[in-house]
Formats: sequence, C-alpha cells, structure tokens
Amino acid sequence: MFEAYEQNRTLPKKDFKQQLPGLRVELLQLQQRLNTAGFPVIVLFAGVDGAGKGESVNFLNEWMDPRSIATHPYDLPSDEERERPDFWRYWRDLPGHGEIALLLSAWYSRPLLDRAMDVSSAQAFTEQLAHIRRFERMLADDGALILKFWMHLGREQQAARLKQLEADPLTAWRVRDTDWQHWERYAYFVEAARVLIEATDKPGAPWQIVEGYEQGWRSMMVARTLRDALQQRLDSKKPKKQPKNASRKPVAQSRYPRLDALDLSLRLKKREYNDRLQAAQARLNALQRQAQNRKLSTVMVFEGWDAAGKGGAIRRVVQSLNARDYRVIRIAAPSDEELRHHYLWRFWRHVPRGGKVTIYDRSWYGRVLVERVEGFATRAAWQRAYAEINEFEDELTANGTVLCKFWVHIDPKEQYRRFQDREATPHKQWKLTEEDWRNRDKWGDYVVAVDDLFRYTSSKQAPWTAVEGNDKRWSRVRIIETVCTRLAEALQD
Amino acid sequence: MFEAYEQNRTLPKKDFKQQLPGLRVELLQLQQRLNTAGFPVIVLFAGVDGAGKGESVNFLNEWMDPRSIATHPYDLPSDEERERPDFWRYWRDLPGHGEIALLLSAWYSRPLLDRAMDVSSAQAFTEQLAHIRRFERMLADDGALILKFWMHLGREQQAARLKQLEADPLTAWRVRDTDWQHWERYAYFVEAARVLIEATDKPGAPWQIVEGYEQGWRSMMVARTLRDALQQRLDSKKPKKQPKNASRKPVAQSRYPRLDALDLSLRLKKREYNDRLQAAQARLNALQRQAQNRKLSTVMVFEGWDAAGKGGAIRRVVQSLNARDYRVIRIAAPSDEELRHHYLWRFWRHVPRGGKVTIYDRSWYGRVLVERVEGFATRAAWQRAYAEINEFEDELTANGTVLCKFWVHIDPKEQYRRFQDREATPHKQWKLTEEDWRNRDKWGDYVVAVDDLFRYTSSKQAPWTAVEGNDKRWSRVRIIETVCTRLAEALQD
Repeated sequence: MFEAYEQNRTLPKKDFKQQLPGLRVELLQLQQRLNTAGFPVIVLFAGVDGAGKGESVNFLNEWMDPRSIATHPYDLPSDEERERPDFWRYWRDLPGHGEIALLLSAWYSRPLLDRAMDVSSAQAFTEQLAHIRRFERMLADDGALILKFWMHLGREQQAARLKQLEADPLTAWRVRDTDWQHWERYAYFVEAARVLIEATDKPGAPWQIVEGYEQGWRSMMVARTLRDALQQRLDSKKPKKQPKNASRKPVAQSRYPRLDALDLSLRLKKREYNDRLQAAQARLNALQRQAQNRKLSTVMVFEGWDAAGKGGAIRRVVQSLNARDYRVIRIAAPSDEELRHHYLWRFWRHVPRGGKVTIYDRSWYGRVLVERVEGFATRAAWQRAYAEINEFEDELTANGTVLCKFWVHIDPKEQYRRFQDREATPHKQWKLTEEDWRNRDKWGDYVVAVDDLFRYTSSKQAPWTAVEGNDKRWSRVRIIETVCTRLAEALQD
Repeated sequence: MFEAYEQNRTLPKKDFKQQLPGLRVELLQLQQRLNTAGFPVIVLFAGVDGAGKGESVNFLNEWMDPRSIATHPYDLPSDEERERPDFWRYWRDLPGHGEIALLLSAWYSRPLLDRAMDVSSAQAFTEQLAHIRRFERMLADDGALILKFWMHLGREQQAARLKQLEADPLTAWRVRDTDWQHWERYAYFVEAARVLIEATDKPGAPWQIVEGYEQGWRSMMVARTLRDALQQRLDSKKPKKQPKNASRKPVAQSRYPRLDALDLSLRLKKREYNDRLQAAQARLNALQRQAQNRKLSTVMVFEGWDAAGKGGAIRRVVQSLNARDYRVIRIAAPSDEELRHHYLWRFWRHVPRGGKVTIYDRSWYGRVLVERVEGFATRAAWQRAYAEINEFEDELTANGTVLCKFWVHIDPKEQYRRFQDREATPHKQWKLTEEDWRNRDKWGDYVVAVDDLFRYTSSKQAPWTAVEGNDKRWSRVRIIETVCTRLAEALQD
C-alpha cells in the first residue's frame, strides 16, 4: 500500500514558488465561500514521525485566513479529560459551521501506537477502529467535510529524516527518544497503519496518503487535496448526501417498556409516600457519596409529557444530593454556537467529571421526539439519530458512567387537569405556554415516537424506565428508587 | 459585627409555609423580567461551615426556573485550572446577561481559610482582598448584580449544629474532619471574616449577613434579599450606575513609547534580514522549548494600523514554534455568547495552559481603540477599561505568564501604498475592506487613542513595544528579537 509513497519525490523550489500564489488565492476564496456554507471542515493529520504533520499544519495556518481555522494538538489528557469518556475532548474541539479544525495526534494516535507497540490486541484495535468509523460517519452524516492525511515515509527515509533533523540545532529538538524507539518497530507500525487505513477509509472520511520526503512536495499535495475537496463540496448541488443508513431499520437492543402496558392507576398514600421518599433519599445520598469516592459519575435523563412532573421529580432527586456534586441542565433553545455544531455537541459539553451527577431536563432525545413530530429534523436525520444516540450512550457507559433514563408518563386527561391547575396557580403560570396546548393535538404522533424511542434506544447499560406519572407521589418514589438500584448495581461491579 | 446574628432566630414552620408560595411567585416573575434585562446576577455564598450554604443553593435551585440558573461549586483546581491564573476558573463560569450563577467556595474561600489557619500573613490577606475588590468592581461596573451572603453561626451554635448533623445518619456525611479542625480555630476564622467583610463590602458588591441557626429563617432571609435586590435593580430607571472611576484619570505606570518618537526610516537589507531573522527564529525556538519544560506560558498581543504587517509578523513568529504549542486567536466580531458577558470574558477563554503560547491578533485593546474612536463603547466604559486591562494583565503576569504587546506602526502614506497593493494582488484582496478605507479618515483620533493606551497600560511586566513598521523586514526581526529578550529574562528569574 505504501510503496508508491516512498519514491523520494520532490517539488523543485522554483515550481513551488510559482504555484504557491495561485493556490493561496484559491484556498482563500474557497474559505470565504465556506464561511456561509453551513458545514464544518475537519482535517486530521497522522503518519510517520518526521513526515511533516506539524509543518503541514503550520503552513495551512500561514496560508489561510486565520479567523476561521484552529489547530488542536492532543497530548496526554488533562485530568478534566481523563475523568470523562475518551472522545469528550474531541467533541469539545469540534469545529462549527464554516470553521476548519486542524487535528494533530487525535483519535487515531493512541490506538495505532498501542497496536504497533503490541500493547493492545488485534481485536481491541479492530474495535477501536470500528468505534472511530461510527464516530466519523456521524459527523459526515451531519454534513462535516472530513479529510485525513497519512503523511508517509519509508523506513530508510525516516531514519535519514530523523538524522537530518538531529544534525541541525534548529530542528534537533523535534526528535524525541520515542521517535527512535518507534522507528525500531517501523514494520509493526506500518502494518498497523495499513490495517487502520483499510478499516477507516470510507466515503465520508477518506484517507489521503502523502509522501513526506520533501517539504515542497508534501505541502503542495496537502494544499491541493484540501482545495479540491473544498471545491467539490462547495460546488455540489446537494451539500449533504443522503446517509446510507437512513432507510435501515435500527435494531432493537434489549427488553424495552411500552406505554400501553403502564398501569396509570398506581398510587401512594401520603404516609407511605413520606416514608418511602425519605428512605430512598437517604439511600441515594449514601450511594452518591460512595460514587463520589469511587469517581463514578451519573447521568440522568428526564423526558416525558408536558406537566408530567419532571421538574418536581428532579427536585426530589437533588434534595438528597450535595449541591457541589450535581448540575441540572435544562434543555431549551440552542445558542448560536450550539446550532453551528452537531446536535450532540451541546450535550457532550455537560458530561460530568468523575464522581459528579448531570441531570438533563429534556435531552438529546429531542431529535427523535419533538424534532421528529414537528418535522424540524429530516426523516433521514431523526432515523439515524437512534444509532448516534446509542453510540453516545455507549461511550458514557463504557467510561463507567451510570445512565438512568426516565420517561414520565401521564394520560391526556391528567395533563388537561394539570394545565388547568397551572393556569389557576400564580406561581405555576410561567410553566404553561401556548405551545403546550398545541402539543396536545399531536398526542398520537408522540406516542408512536416514544414507543420507537423505547424500542431502539434501550439496552442493558442504558435502559429506559417508563414511570407511571398520574400520581406524583408514586412517580417520584419510583424514580429515586430506580436511581438507587442502578447506582447500587454499579457500585457492586 | 456578628453578635446580632447569633440570636438563635427561627421562623415557625407554619409562617414559612404561608410565606413561601407568594415569595416563589415573586422570584419567578423577577426571573422572567431578568431574562431580557441585559445584566448577569452573581450570588456568592460564604460563611461558617454548617450554616446552610449548600442548602441555600439547593432551595434557590428548587424554587426558581432552572433554565437560567447554574450552580458553580469550587473544589481543588483541576490541572487545566492550576496552570492558569487563579481567577481563570471564575471567569470561565461567569453568567451571561439574564443568567444567575450561584457560587460556592469561590474567590473568598482560600484567602479566608489561609488567614484563619495562619498560613498567610495579614498583608497577603489584605492584598488578596484588594484584588477581589477590583475584580468585583469590574463586574459591577459592567452591570453585574452581585450579592454576597455570609451565612453565620456563633461558636456554640456551630458546635451544636455539627453535633446535630453527626447524629443523623442522613446528614452525618456532611461533617468532615476539617470542619472540627476549623471549629477549633473559630475565633481566628471569625476575626478573618470580619476583616474580609469590612474590606469587601462595597456598593456594587455588598455583603449580607444571615443567621444560619435555623433552616426556615435563613432560607427566607436569603430569598427575600435576593428578591429585593432583583426588584430594585429591575425597577431602577438607570440600570447601570455611572461607575465612580469614570472621570478619574488613570495613572501612568512606567516608561512608555510614543508614536511621534518612532523612526520609520529604519530598514534592513535583504541579506541582513535573512541572517537576523533566521538567528532570531532559532533562538525563539530554543527559548520556547525551555519555557515549555518550565511550564512558562506566553501571551503575545498584536495591535497596529490596518496593513501594518501584523499577520506577516505573526507568521514569522509561529514558523519557529511547534504547531502543538501555540494558538493564534484572531479577534473579529464576538459571538452572541461572548456578547452576553463582560468584554474581557472572551479573552480569558483563550489564556494558555502552562508552557503554551497564545497569540492574539487584535485583542482586548479594541475597547480603547476602535470602540473608543467609533463610539461603540461609552466614554465611561472605555475610560475604566484601562484599569480593567491592567488588572487582567497583572493576573497573567503574576501567574508567571510572559506578556509581549506590540503596536506595529506605519505612516498614512505607507498604508495607502499597501492598500493599493492589496487591491492589485488577487491573494491579498480579501484582506481589504471598505472599512479599512473609512478608518483612514480617523487617523488622528487613533493616534490620540494609541498614545493614551501606551501611557496608561505600560508597566514593567507588561510593556508595550512600538514597532517601526514601514519596512516589514525591520519590524519582523524587531518583534521576534523582542520576544526572545522577554522570554530569556523570564527564564533567568
């Protein structure tokens, strides 16, 4: 695969100088068109040490308009990063629409090195690559233009390059001890790279192999490839191609609840409510302190009908928590910064650190609920959202996060009663909007959407709990007791 | 000072229940008005352990609309926080317009404890408090409503409270060993608190002392105080009071450059340029690697006339840096999230971690340059900006950050020549806008603003370098050599 890129190819300096001005103009003009084009650009550099990854980033920074381009190099994770899922740090740096992100040592770096150094098995490597493929497809499906450059050097080329760098005091610092250690394992490294490229060279996220022997040649190759990709994308009539998986039926993952199987007559008497609530709160408090000590983080998702009692339930949950440990994120209209990103970006932002709790009052499920029912998302978009959501939640739970998802259910009659109560009670009026009344007309559409959501996003690690909500006492106790059970299970592991 | 708040005051449960619904309605209505009011609200809790700080945060979260309220508890700083100025973490959590932030263990916590435990001297404490006062005034001047609650307990009250918490299994966890250790030093703690409150109880950021003996009493006191403060502020005709320091002349801090003293005829021949540039770049590269090892971070600010050559100079600087170590932040129009914050917030966002470099292409000086000249900022706002900027830069340099500020200077004739060149060169046309031509008409106003800026924001740690820019070779070499000198000095310390 790589022999063709070990030919000592060079671009004469005078040709480089001649071609550069025209290419810069093209890149700048494309970048200006990109500003209003409504998609982000991700340019990832990987490859052999010494093949010019950093230099390529430098010259793109130099040649293009710096206002909408940013470099993100990844080193060892900080403690804020370490306590969250591995991909959290990539999510927080993802470019918005019209922006270009240049990534160094990003998501391919650790899997590749671990495989080359035989720290990880072939199977683990395969799984990591499959995960990356799903991640990149999610971004591509959302419209991101993704370019991945493999900057290549042959074994002898690399040795020569490292020696050359070492010989010049201005560049000797670039050669670290690990570079030579990696070079010793060149054959393993390149074999892992071959597997990696074959597994992740996909239509929405293709690899470009560039021979890194000489600066002029490789710079021009990178710049031209970027130019062509931008041009093609900006000129295409349909900016977003229809994602492949749009028509595929997502697969049911596990046992899941059904709305029509719920017994809404379930009730608690006041005394029993008080006793059980207090006991559950005390237990939750104790469990959360253990979780805090173990750096086990918790994410709770509250979905449900308007006036189903989500807010009241959340208040009972947080009463038993230390104010320092939790955060309630109420999901309302996105900010303009959020709108320019993948819809999951705004939820990734709030993923808790180790030992902390994030409670989402409404959540990423908006995509397959209100956005589906109201037609805010295209059919393709909400259909692929099931897989995207499962992927996101897998990352949370793989990181050890306890994930509790609640749908608080009431029937239309009970909702009507509560709306009228809200209208009559001064300190509840703010909760009721015109929209709430309008949503009632679409009850049936929502029921279909909710049943789909149960069906396609329930799993052992991320189960849905459908809560009988006609009686608030019942639902509150049920919710806190469920959280306790999930936490206790996780703490036993 | 505190005796009046050690009276074992309580609010009978039935009074509490009677008063609560009305108060909640008022708070919710005020919060709705706040949404569009264009200022942020900062509610800070400090006080004696066990006096109900966390509980107060909990019930405010419970009573108010969670969409625009957020809790920020501060623990030991993360490594991302530790490598930046102390106040970076507070800046990144500051609420935007219409938002309420509830702060626990924020900027008073460490100074107070250190003083009470005799870790810091009285003088250090005084200096820390002066710093806090300036910080709070900056926020208040910008329109923030700041409320600070000192939740109080007398010595015996606290002992009783800790014992009571320990006796109940549901609350025993709240009592940490350190609580009793602090209690042993109660007298010192309260004396330090007295000094603290006296030093920082200021019109724009007043302290409210609340007796924390009983939950009903203290909750009602906190809620009423918040209600009254919101009401008063929302009802006032002039939302922002004219800050006191608006008319005060800022004080010159040190030797500073003058535009009319610059010799714009300074030039470098091509050969000398090449030699010196290469030598300076090599030196900068070596110095930055040392800085990286020492976790010494660098901030560079580039200001100057349109077409003065800032971009070209920045490119020569970054050529000698590792792409992983620097970030260029080009300051253009703020995002809506940035507009809802203090104007310095967006610059704080990009303050580098230890060992890294942030280069601001235009900067916080926009407030006293374009915003002053174009009238985008009020006279009061740009006048107090000098002090705010000095404060900000003090925090950077106190943290060990090397700060280099460049004004790249050219004369109007040279600018005209360059504008015409840009019009004629395809890959430069994007740089030239109508606005650039318009700005030329205000050359004289800018000269006055620049000279003021030199005069009021030059200090030993944060000096301005005015760069003779008519010859680009000269200015590029001058800039890199200056950075080298500053870095070398800092590395010698």
